[in-house]
Amino acid sequence: MNANTAILLISCPDQRGLVAALSGFVAAENGNILHLDQHVDIEQNVFFARMEWELDGFRIPRDRLPEAVAQLATPRRMKWELHFSEQKPRMAIFVSRQAHCLYDLLARHEAGELEAEIPLIVGNHADLQPAAARFGIPFRVIPADKDRRAEAEREEIRLLEEHGVDTIVLARYMQILSGDFVRRYPNRIINIHHSFLPAFPGAKPYHSAHGRGVKIIGATAHYVTENLDEGPIIEQDVVRVSHRQTIEDLVRQGRDLEKVVLARAVHWHLHKKILVYNNKTVIF
Amino acid sequence: MNANTAILLISCPDQRGLVAALSGFVAAENGNILHLDQHVDIEQNVFFARMEWELDGFRIPRDRLPEAVAQLATPRRMKWELHFSEQKPRMAIFVSRQAHCLYDLLARHEAGELEAEIPLIVGNHADLQPAAARFGIPFRVIPADKDRRAEAEREEIRLLEEHGVDTIVLARYMQILSGDFVRRYPNRIINIHHSFLPAFPGAKPYHSAHGRGVKIIGATAHYVTENLDEGPIIEQDVVRVSHRQTIEDLVRQGRDLEKVVLARAVHWHLHKKILVYNNKTVIF
Amino acid sequence: MNANTAILLISCPDQRGLVAALSGFVAAENGNILHLDQHVDIEQNVFFARMEWELDGFRIPRDRLPEAVAQLATPRRMKWELHFSEQKPRMAIFVSRQAHCLYDLLARHEAGELEAEIPLIVGNHADLQPAAARFGIPFRVIPADKDRRAEAEREEIRLLEEHGVDTIVLARYMQILSGDFVRRYPNRIINIHHSFLPAFPGAKPYHSAHGRGVKIIGATAHYVTENLDEGPIIEQDVVRVSHRQTIEDLVRQGRDLEKVVLARAVHWHLHKKILVYNNKTVIF
Amino acid sequence: MNANTAILLISCPDQRGLVAALSGFVAAENGNILHLDQHVDIEQNVFFARMEWELDGFRIPRDRLPEAVAQLATPRRMKWELHFSEQKPRMAIFVSRQAHCLYDLLARHEAGELEAEIPLIVGNHADLQPAAARFGIPFRVIPADKDRRAEAEREEIRLLEEHGVDTIVLARYMQILSGDFVRRYPNRIINIHHSFLPAFPGAKPYHSAHGRGVKIIGATAHYVTENLDEGPIIEQDVVRVSHRQTIEDLVRQGRDLEKVVLARAVHWHLHKKILVYNNKTVIF
Repeated sequence: MNANTAILLISCPDQRGLVAALSGFVAAENGNILHLDQHVDIEQNVFFARMEWELDGFRIPRDRLPEAVAQLATPRRMKWELHFSEQKPRMAIFVSRQAHCLYDLLARHEAGELEAEIPLIVGNHADLQPAAARFGIPFRVIPADKDRRAEAEREEIRLLEEHGVDTIVLARYMQILSGDFVRRYPNRIINIHHSFLPAFPGAKPYHSAHGRGVKIIGATAHYVTENLDEGPIIEQDVVRVSHRQTIEDLVRQGRDLEKVVLARAVHWHLHKKILVYNNKTVIF
Repeated sequence: MNANTAILLISCPDQRGLVAALSGFVAAENGNILHLDQHVDIEQNVFFARMEWELDGFRIPRDRLPEAVAQLATPRRMKWELHFSEQKPRMAIFVSRQAHCLYDLLARHEAGELEAEIPLIVGNHADLQPAAARFGIPFRVIPADKDRRAEAEREEIRLLEEHGVDTIVLARYMQILSGDFVRRYPNRIINIHHSFLPAFPGAKPYHSAHGRGVKIIGATAHYVTENLDEGPIIEQDVVRVSHRQTIEDLVRQGRDLEKVVLARAVHWHLHKKILVYNNKTVIF
Repeated sequence: MNANTAILLISCPDQRGLVAALSGFVAAENGNILHLDQHVDIEQNVFFARMEWELDGFRIPRDRLPEAVAQLATPRRMKWELHFSEQKPRMAIFVSRQAHCLYDLLARHEAGELEAEIPLIVGNHADLQPAAARFGIPFRVIPADKDRRAEAEREEIRLLEEHGVDTIVLARYMQILSGDFVRRYPNRIINIHHSFLPAFPGAKPYHSAHGRGVKIIGATAHYVTENLDEGPIIEQDVVRVSHRQTIEDLVRQGRDLEKVVLARAVHWHLHKKILVYNNKTVIF
Repeated sequence: MNANTAILLISCPDQRGLVAALSGFVAAENGNILHLDQHVDIEQNVFFARMEWELDGFRIPRDRLPEAVAQLATPRRMKWELHFSEQKPRMAIFVSRQAHCLYDLLARHEAGELEAEIPLIVGNHADLQPAAARFGIPFRVIPADKDRRAEAEREEIRLLEEHGVDTIVLARYMQILSGDFVRRYPNRIINIHHSFLPAFPGAKPYHSAHGRGVKIIGATAHYVTENLDEGPIIEQDVVRVSHRQTIEDLVRQGRDLEKVVLARAVHWHLHKKILVYNNKTVIF
């Protein structure tokens, strides 16, 4: 688990010999492949792969690796991302007033479960400042009402850049982000929506679920795109409910879903297990 | 299970003493209550109950029971239904070309799991005639294309009345029923929709689910109302999927959901465990 | 939810008129029943009920209620417990070194989800002292190695009595309690075991599950009895695993199960929703 | 799906270059890999792979393929199995008196869901002869009481060989098979056990589950080995139950589990997706 590894994420038109080319590339330079997972979308004829290998003993030094990967990738029209396990992602958490997802992430982080630095928590309200303080993480209040959203986002971007943040987790942050903001962090902003999307998008999904009389409620973690609640779905889970549950019961049961669904999505993102294609996710 | 029982389903404005009145009614006449389940919808201030008691030793004879119940119910503004376990429901099954739900219901019926007579299977195609024949149940082909729907429904209604049918199960019957037809069988037509409603109503939900990239698919059994896929939900269930599943895989996995979700809904309906209110169901 | 209520839990030999007697008792004194749930174990011929009613307007004053209930209960050979929603349970949490269940409970408590006071956390190690401190709850380190268990339990009992504790939650407290200790708190000590009992009792269940190659792992919350891992099961839940998961993965996924299963059990216990009979639980 | 393919299942000590060797082997002979899934058991240092490739255009003819695979496999100490999609498995179903799994398999087979021939159904009772007859499959009654088990097995083996059977599905066949019998069909006999193994092995698991008061029941499909209920687990699934369910309810709900769990296991087996190692299964 703690080996110093490289991770290559690939997508390209399907063609013969792709796995042989990928695995041969590592084997030829004395690398040891830990994981090689591939998937072919037969309908779209697209090949996806995630390859992770140990850098110990691998003959290509890290600074020359991007060039070597490019030589492999370009003739095969591969889109690729290269990551190194040593470089810890830097993750900001955005919150509003509800504490459950924040506490859950902070407790996981303290337990060593999340491979990331958390340099910053942003709240549009001050309510969760004490929670952040307990775990010793800087908390900034940036009100984000409609009339000052642009100003708020400028401040947020400045802070995110100052702290070198590459991943943003919206932990029940009940504000809409602008297209400009979202485009700066493509597939790097993870939101938790409190319904089983595409059912019940928008506000108050537990009220809608209760009104419709569904027998199962859900939660959905997804990457944020410009269209609200329509980004690539990373993870979903559900829990059974009955006519006996009030809206308050749904909210309470839903919180448990939200926590665990968001945490799984964050975990996979941090471990570079997610590839986005056609507004869908491949989870390796 | 095999006792000769009466079942009373009640809904009314919530008020003090309802359970005492119901249970007292049975106790005073020497009845033995097997089940008394109640539920209060606090938001709507409505009381629901299902009471089942043994008729052996009960002092009110069956033919005078409706009158006695009315005396109990009227002053309390109760809506009520009275059923007797001895009267087996008569259930018709409507099918198109897919056999899985039909076989599942027929196998359960043969095993004694469904407390009903099945005097009739109707298909808008002839494909499943052999399946019906294997289980010795009359099968009628009634084509139901758009241009002859009214004629088809007249024929269906005639058959249903001839066979004394009170419950209709649409076992992947891929036709829309008219409002006229539906109003004849209020809360007596059960449909299985192959998605997790309200997500993906209408045609080809597995294709839509695949296109959206959801991580869980579902099936929904509901009573049919005039608005397609919007009737009261009786039961739902889900199964986890991943990017690896093709549409064909979803269809295959979905079939297993459809069978079991439909069967549960039919089971509860036949045992008079369902109360409909406000387009939602209370399942006792 | 916030009404001032009385809760009566009953078990007795099944007999005619029990529900009428219970509901009549409340109705006769002008009480308003909020919930009356009953269950009959047909095999054992035992009747169980939970009745909750509003004390506002109820004509029997609280201090005379036990006597009135006794008059109802004694001739019917009822075992009964009477609770008042106003009296908040006092709950101690026992921990060892793992923080996840503790943080989860403390975050729920802070959010107002748990109707209890938490006057005390006991650890057999000091590791979680900082976690308790963050939430401002007294933490006592009481080493509980085998050679000083009796001494440790004496100290624990003294503390529990000093703090008026009536409910003990073992939040991954990895120590065995003596029969003497357990008998002091019958059906008041809740443990979370990290397997789907009765599979994999005892130590290291995730290792055993991995060794056996199961496809689903679970967690079980139960009341502690003198026989390890054999007490009445309150709640269980499971998660799907595959050959790809290492033992470490199982441990990580299992933590999410443990948290939510324990929290549900504690919630039901605090709301007096659990009746124990024949080493099993009825959950209303 | 319908391509004419070869499937290679591999296990061997983990070593560098295995994926490159496998994929290079196919690519060098102009084969098109459809699936290449691999897994490394880090604790045991064992490599597993399943590779499926199209035979159209592949330069090694089918009759020379085993020799070519051996050349690849032997120096790497690979254990391997080679299958061709064209060769349909021949599957016998063994039953006793319960019809649900049998009907489920026969309906799936008729729908084209199971890639197998079913030349034979064996029952130790005659009860299900009519069910087999409906689907036109030969049914043989072979009583298998303890005192004539050896004789029964001789007859079964003769029949199985006569029909060229390679896979045996025990569809609630409530008899124990001898070690001699089992050893003839290693990892080719699939049983469905009606509990969540290792909980409740042996007879009457629903009674045991009810007695213990579990909140979830399960079913387990596994390969049969000489030790009853201890073979490699292929698939498991569960369903939530409560104190309200009687043993009969558990039996009824369990049947739905048994059907679907068995069907999934059979599906994976027929598609050569299962590798057995150390009494555990890798499911690709």
